[in-house]
Amino acid sequence: MTALTSAVAAPEVLDRCRALVRPALREAVGRMHPWVGEMAAYSFGWCEVGGRPAVVSGGKGLRPALAVLGAEAAGAPGRAGIPAAVAVELVHAFSLLHDDIMDGDAARRRRPTVWKAYGTGPAVLAGDALFALAVETLAATPAGPAALRLLSTALGDLVRGQADDLLFATRPWTGPRRVRAGEYRTMAEHKTGALLGCAAALGALLGGAPPATVAALDRAGRHLGIAFQVVDDALGIWGDPAVTGKPAHGDLREGKKTFPVLAALDAEGPAAGRLAALLESAQEPAEAAALIEEAGGRAAAPAEARRHVAAVESALAGLPIATGAADDLRSLLGFLVRRDL
Amino acid sequence: MTALTSAVAAPEVLDRCRALVRPALREAVGRMHPWVGEMAAYSFGWCEVGGRPAVVSGGKGLRPALAVLGAEAAGAPGRAGIPAAVAVELVHAFSLLHDDIMDGDAARRRRPTVWKAYGTGPAVLAGDALFALAVETLAATPAGPAALRLLSTALGDLVRGQADDLLFATRPWTGPRRVRAGEYRTMAEHKTGALLGCAAALGALLGGAPPATVAALDRAGRHLGIAFQVVDDALGIWGDPAVTGKPAHGDLREGKKTFPVLAALDAEGPAAGRLAALLESAQEPAEAAALIEEAGGRAAAPAEARRHVAAVESALAGLPIATGAADDLRSLLGFLVRRDL
Repeated sequence: MTALTSAVAAPEVLDRCRALVRPALREAVGRMHPWVGEMAAYSFGWCEVGGRPAVVSGGKGLRPALAVLGAEAAGAPGRAGIPAAVAVELVHAFSLLHDDIMDGDAARRRRPTVWKAYGTGPAVLAGDALFALAVETLAATPAGPAALRLLSTALGDLVRGQADDLLFATRPWTGPRRVRAGEYRTMAEHKTGALLGCAAALGALLGGAPPATVAALDRAGRHLGIAFQVVDDALGIWGDPAVTGKPAHGDLREGKKTFPVLAALDAEGPAAGRLAALLESAQEPAEAAALIEEAGGRAAAPAEARRHVAAVESALAGLPIATGAADDLRSLLGFLVRRDL
Repeated sequence: MTALTSAVAAPEVLDRCRALVRPALREAVGRMHPWVGEMAAYSFGWCEVGGRPAVVSGGKGLRPALAVLGAEAAGAPGRAGIPAAVAVELVHAFSLLHDDIMDGDAARRRRPTVWKAYGTGPAVLAGDALFALAVETLAATPAGPAALRLLSTALGDLVRGQADDLLFATRPWTGPRRVRAGEYRTMAEHKTGALLGCAAALGALLGGAPPATVAALDRAGRHLGIAFQVVDDALGIWGDPAVTGKPAHGDLREGKKTFPVLAALDAEGPAAGRLAALLESAQEPAEAAALIEEAGGRAAAPAEARRHVAAVESALAGLPIATGAADDLRSLLGFLVRRDL
């Protein structure tokens, strides 16, 4: 992991990129239909229901930061990546709005989700508007068809990953129809990795990077997404609720097919067998967590994450990336996957 | 209206275009996630819930036909417009899926809507997937950024029109906050006209038409959309339920701000006053319909439609459009607005 440490602290990198992108993001959202724009602003943490300004913290701004750093990696100024940053952040917001409807999630970042605050129909519409605005933002750049192809591939993967994630919930814990770790990886790559890869690749493309660099950043982002998701799954079981903001054992209670559980079930031995029986009968979250750990599922998560971090490293190795950008990029990647390991 | 009549019957034009586009549309839908693809196929009338083939008739295929005719208008073979036809038909299907959720509509073409048949969350996802596939389809064509700009403008307008339509329902019938006919026109242009204009313009663009032709076809489609919507509104009040497939006075019962009502309320005189009072108190659909007619709202609809048909004619006049395509286009336009007048 040492290669992923850097002199520049990741929160500073995120702050710098957020400050660079925010005016353009605000401007884009300001062009929306006022009613729909309020829902978008609410989802970014900029306002409360009714429109009065909020003092709520939004997301980390990881995707826009990757777009800015992608442009800088290509030797361009970070502002060259702004249209990419705005487009991917709009797509991310769209996917959160719609996923919260599909998953029935009532809260996000300690506030009611958009569908809870404004109603399901309006939230569907606001998501659609964010999606349309993302396409419009990118169509207005001179980057041409390659940029749109990157975004549309990520959009397709995002939807595919969400479909698989929803379907996983309907499948059994054991037997031939059970979810394998390999299927999980594909789902996580699509649902989380595709947009991270797209952000970095699109930024690099707008910064004038050669196709090999664009492709490598896309690949790196996809592995980062899997690592991030695996880590998130482990935190959802063993993380401190005060830090994660999620209820203890929430995913276990909901019977989610997370990586540690799937890895534990794939292991041979008595603990895996007892875990399978427990999961198929009534849920006992604390007992399940102990059995997952006993069967090796807890240790499997950081091991899996490390493999994907290594893949990120190997995708980035040897690329003609500007030094400052490479440092910031590594700092960011390290920050995202180290929080857990 | 004589200029809009033609030797070729519109249903034949629609059939020819549908046959040309269908294989590519099927191929695109076939690339979707299987579960999501089934919902898409169900919405096109190709299958029942569970996947077994259906004998249900789908839509008229108006938008794909406009795309094919747009390409032919540019002197290209109709197949040049196929990517445009597929993209706009996917966008249309996306908007129907999501609008049915927002409007709470349980039936479409005498079948349960997708959200009724598969659930709200899955229907949101299927709409998103259709949207993503539309962008992907167009990104894969060599038409370049102009094509994506046309589509993204139409997407933005579509969402804006739907937002206004939803908000109209929350506004009063009288007083300063009432909905004016001008706002209705803008809503109808966005909600219905933008995608019709985009279809014809995008087909022409892929067929190699000069920018002036592309812009004129876009304008023509937008006016066609308003004419179509106004006519649809009138049919919703005075049409034969056996022909329209809609319940008698359904829009009046739901208190929808349709054109004939708004035109009637804009009129001076005692009938308009009595209508306003009736609408603000309990609904009496049959009585309201009579008052709308008495206040001139019934006659206003075909007059309004005729004005937009004239605008379509004037947008098309003098364009360098190939003769056969011009005939088919006029036949189609006439068919769409004559059904009512």
